[in-house]
Amino acid sequence: MDRVDVDGPCDQGCPIKKTALIIEGKWTTLVIRELLSGKKRYSHLHRALQGISPKVLSSRLRMLEEKKLISRTVFATVPVTTEYQLTELGLKLQPVLLAMAEFGSQWQQH
Amino acid sequence: MDRVDVDGPCDQGCPIKKTALIIEGKWTTLVIRELLSGKKRYSHLHRALQGISPKVLSSRLRMLEEKKLISRTVFATVPVTTEYQLTELGLKLQPVLLAMAEFGSQWQQH
Repeated sequence: MDRVDVDGPCDQGCPIKKTALIIEGKWTTLVIRELLSGKKRYSHLHRALQGISPKVLSSRLRMLEEKKLISRTVFATVPVTTEYQLTELGLKLQPVLLAMAEFGSQWQQH
Repeated sequence: MDRVDVDGPCDQGCPIKKTALIIEGKWTTLVIRELLSGKKRYSHLHRALQGISPKVLSSRLRMLEEKKLISRTVFATVPVTTEYQLTELGLKLQPVLLAMAEFGSQWQQH
């Protein structure tokens, strides 16, 4: 990997900005969190992410799929079943979420 | 620290959600990034974060100060000089940003 970028100007190629734009918003992060433990059905995600609207969930899933971070499999059941899982690239977000979990645990004490 | 939280339900106490709510939005993340290399004046931050409006920068700095992640020092110069730096708690976000930088570097290849 390249030198870890925290010094110098954050221009177009700034890796932290790229990641910030991907996980922008709590719901995107929480969708990825759900998928870290394995593939999940749409209905599971909707149930697990309490408070998320179907519209927001669908838009976040579509964005993550467009960015090749998750893949979608549709089963021809009645009604149709849709399953989502992290791609190899998406799984590389795990260290980010683990670091967020560790910080959040410390934050709880404040 | 507590067990790293990626399994199970993400309820009110979910550490990842807490962190996601703090670094929500690219500008908050990029302000923290600037401060990782040391204390900075307001004017430096405004120049370094190309494209940020004074209103957004001020609101992000105020939010980070309220959450005790940064501290603000005002010098009685003419005009007044304001300096910001990460607190001990704020510095604990470094691993999150380093993980984001590493992911972003890999993402660049896609």
